Amino acid sequence: MRCVIGIDFGTLSARAILVDVAGGVILGESVFRYPHGVIDRQMLDGEKLPPAWALQHPEDYLAALENTVKGVLHLTGVDPGVVIGISVDFTCCTLIPVDDRLTPLCLLQEFEHNKHAYPKLWKHHAAQKYADQLSRIARQREEAFLNRYCGYISPEWAIPKMMELYDQATEVCRSAAWYMEAGDWITFLMTGNLIHSSSYATYKSAWSVEENYPSDDFFEALSPGFSKEVKKHTGLQVQMIGTKAGELTERYADILGLKPGTAVGVPSGDAYAAVLGESVVEEGELIIVIGTSSCDAVFTKEKRRIYGIDCVLKDAIIPGLYAYEAGQFGTGDTLDWAVNYLAPYEYYNEAKEKGLSLHQLLSAKAEVLKPGESGLLALDWFNGNRSVLRNASLSGAVIGLNMTTKPEEIYRSLIEATAFGQQTIINAFVDAGIKINRIILSGGVARKNRFLDQVYADVFGRDVVVSNNPQASALGSAMYAAVAAGPERGGCRDVFEAAEKMRCKDRVMVTPNENNHLTYRKLYEYYRTIHDYFGVEDDLMRKLRALKAGQ
Amino acid sequence: MRCVIGIDFGTLSARAILVDVAGGVILGESVFRYPHGVIDRQMLDGEKLPPAWALQHPEDYLAALENTVKGVLHLTGVDPGVVIGISVDFTCCTLIPVDDRLTPLCLLQEFEHNKHAYPKLWKHHAAQKYADQLSRIARQREEAFLNRYCGYISPEWAIPKMMELYDQATEVCRSAAWYMEAGDWITFLMTGNLIHSSSYATYKSAWSVEENYPSDDFFEALSPGFSKEVKKHTGLQVQMIGTKAGELTERYADILGLKPGTAVGVPSGDAYAAVLGESVVEEGELIIVIGTSSCDAVFTKEKRRIYGIDCVLKDAIIPGLYAYEAGQFGTGDTLDWAVNYLAPYEYYNEAKEKGLSLHQLLSAKAEVLKPGESGLLALDWFNGNRSVLRNASLSGAVIGLNMTTKPEEIYRSLIEATAFGQQTIINAFVDAGIKINRIILSGGVARKNRFLDQVYADVFGRDVVVSNNPQASALGSAMYAAVAAGPERGGCRDVFEAAEKMRCKDRVMVTPNENNHLTYRKLYEYYRTIHDYFGVEDDLMRKLRALKAGQ
Repeated sequence: MRCVIGIDFGTLSARAILVDVAGGVILGESVFRYPHGVIDRQMLDGEKLPPAWALQHPEDYLAALENTVKGVLHLTGVDPGVVIGISVDFTCCTLIPVDDRLTPLCLLQEFEHNKHAYPKLWKHHAAQKYADQLSRIARQREEAFLNRYCGYISPEWAIPKMMELYDQATEVCRSAAWYMEAGDWITFLMTGNLIHSSSYATYKSAWSVEENYPSDDFFEALSPGFSKEVKKHTGLQVQMIGTKAGELTERYADILGLKPGTAVGVPSGDAYAAVLGESVVEEGELIIVIGTSSCDAVFTKEKRRIYGIDCVLKDAIIPGLYAYEAGQFGTGDTLDWAVNYLAPYEYYNEAKEKGLSLHQLLSAKAEVLKPGESGLLALDWFNGNRSVLRNASLSGAVIGLNMTTKPEEIYRSLIEATAFGQQTIINAFVDAGIKINRIILSGGVARKNRFLDQVYADVFGRDVVVSNNPQASALGSAMYAAVAAGPERGGCRDVFEAAEKMRCKDRVMVTPNENNHLTYRKLYEYYRTIHDYFGVEDDLMRKLRALKAGQ
Repeated sequence: MRCVIGIDFGTLSARAILVDVAGGVILGESVFRYPHGVIDRQMLDGEKLPPAWALQHPEDYLAALENTVKGVLHLTGVDPGVVIGISVDFTCCTLIPVDDRLTPLCLLQEFEHNKHAYPKLWKHHAAQKYADQLSRIARQREEAFLNRYCGYISPEWAIPKMMELYDQATEVCRSAAWYMEAGDWITFLMTGNLIHSSSYATYKSAWSVEENYPSDDFFEALSPGFSKEVKKHTGLQVQMIGTKAGELTERYADILGLKPGTAVGVPSGDAYAAVLGESVVEEGELIIVIGTSSCDAVFTKEKRRIYGIDCVLKDAIIPGLYAYEAGQFGTGDTLDWAVNYLAPYEYYNEAKEKGLSLHQLLSAKAEVLKPGESGLLALDWFNGNRSVLRNASLSGAVIGLNMTTKPEEIYRSLIEATAFGQQTIINAFVDAGIKINRIILSGGVARKNRFLDQVYADVFGRDVVVSNNPQASALGSAMYAAVAAGPERGGCRDVFEAAEKMRCKDRVMVTPNENNHLTYRKLYEYYRTIHDYFGVEDDLMRKLRALKAGQ
């Protein structure tokens, strides 16, 4: 038996799985919840954070790495000698300023109270104005790289986050040697090799294998001196996804309880790892990974331009195919919000009596409603809109409230809104001439909430395949680990072989209810009305955000 | 000592007060909550009600009359011999179909399961399409009466409610001898006299002292045969407010524990009684009665046309002055909705620990926020919009939601939305050239929620006087009762004398915070944007209501 470990670093927790390469069977799994979670209201010292901030604590990552690997080894009792590879995927762009010894600045006493010294999580949206500036200047200069990203750079990406540091945190810039993706930093710890995964570089740092990074001139145009500062990120050696980052050092082999020299794969973005983990490697398959947020990926052989879709990148996940990435900033966490705030007292008792979680109770109550029955229509932009409007200043809305509106009606309207948002993304693909042959729903929310899956099928008016793969991202990382180990050690030749050998077989088909679909066609039309009103025609939501930010 | 009893029949309960005529001192009060409350989800037999329905049960009114009068007599120990008058005010138009013995049809076994046989409460909004039809046909025919109501008849009024019966409930129409306002019906029970108060007729039935009712031709144009049916309402003798409806019968004197022959005043609408009860009898005073819904009244000596204001009526509350009425369909009940549904589990515990109601807890949490800090903007149209859009199809909305939005932020945004709605009404008065010298907030919500009063002052940017009169409507009814009794029995000559003698002295002044006002000026501008978008430019909310109604 030859095994690999894939570790998926998500927004709130990390999980490691140990997988048998030959059959893809997951032998065990270990989860670790970050003690600090997402730091978005206030710092540890009580300092209130401005709106749209989202930080994390690097100690959580270290604890997660050690605990999950040890945990899964302990759980399975597998001999570390048969573990031939390890690879991680990580939320991105989650950017850590580190010093020249690769220590995150926030771990130094000097920077303990400096919010800019902490890892800025993917959903830190405070760099919106820098993203706007970046996009505007790039358009003025007709920068070629912008075409790969359909004319817009998200505030979540690395460059706006570095612009924010450069503009607002001189002291951090002065001490930072590198600005690293968290996944690269964890990989550095294990291997001692300082690399930058092509997964992150292509998706979040405007790099491409053919055209490299934007020019110094361009960075200089953003801010005098910035071209030098940005080298702390672009100066890292980009290494291709699907290759080996290095081998486990003695020190980390000891910490993790693995053999020194174990192959370590180039890290991946969590959503991209899930694409491979679901064995999506063909043209025309659309995968929607639904978790805290949603991420869409589709491949084509020929290159296309698609309205509102973040980026089209060659060889970024699957060699030889163009990958298109889109998504929604909030899905699972929008529903969490509803569950946290919309349950009256009786519901807590009812859930307790019935032995259900509040999510389950609200889903059960929402499930028996008919589409349109509540009179509600929502916008799911609680974290802003990623595709197709690419505007983090947008916000959520619930319209059609009346005195008899029940929490489960709002909950349902939010699920419907995320489905309408997905429909808008699908329409953009179809309008660009891409034939979608199959839709695969993946991720924790899709797996656990069958009601949501049914709403998606009803809104789309077509069959959807729901993957019961509980660890698509971690399985993808395990596949990358098997490729990193290579056939000579008992791993895989390439990602295609890994996708074939290690594929998850547990999938179900969800078929639409035609009556529901007919009502949803109307509701989708209404959704597009307010989508375009708030998203395109009017800038009310931006003004409200500005007021919230005290501007 | 000479005393009078005023009884206020509200939406959820009735209350009687016993007042000393000479000094206006309230000697005692007795409250009775309607056991059936508002019947708006399902009938007693479990039949689900369509959206926008709101019924009540007449047995609740009978029980309330008997219990409150007996209760206040028992409580005060006052000799029934000194009680010289009694008068009621009632929500309106609350319409009861009765048979020729004046028994509400719903109390007959035959009609027990017929939802149309029950009293339709003021906020029964299912007659919207009849109101639309009525207004359209009246406009086509250039009916003069429409001018008094600014071109629009509300679905809450008597004629749309009768149209709904005529169109949908043939069996009810066949057995109904009269369609009575609930206040007239209660007054009939006490006196044996079948009258129709000028308060209801002018405000809710398109009657005026100069022009009488709309013509038979007009009613016939609404529906063939309707002019005959409508006589079951318009055929009732209209009697002027501020006069005597009759005297207490032996039977009801016995039931209530009062003397036979006690003067009974012509009943009033609850909101109009409150205007007199707050001693508002001068030109340029604006009173806003804030309870379940809000009602505005202002007087002028000269007649004016005002955009979006429901009606301008002479001699309807105060002789010699034109009364303008406007309002908001939901205030207190919109906040109740928030309290019922927006409190997470911890808040229940926190409220319990601190010995606060949830309303108080949410108010306390909302109070420390700054205007605009939440990034939220709401529309308070949970029951539709009365003034200035006059459209019951509109619905509530909350815009600007994000992942950190807290319940108290939504609660605050709803209070702000009601204040912005009031500002819109005030602007309509001012635009019509009416000088508003003073704003008086009255009603249970204004009295109990000082935070709301402060938000109103901050939004208006001017001082507001908050009345601590706990029973403005009941006190107004008591004043009408004193006038009905007349000076010969120890009552009052007219409403001016009653307003002077019996006025409530307990009032406080609330002064605006100028910084808050500056932010609210911005927010009000944004509010007007979505107010006009959803209320005027787009008919999305109507479409959502149609879908909700299964159309």
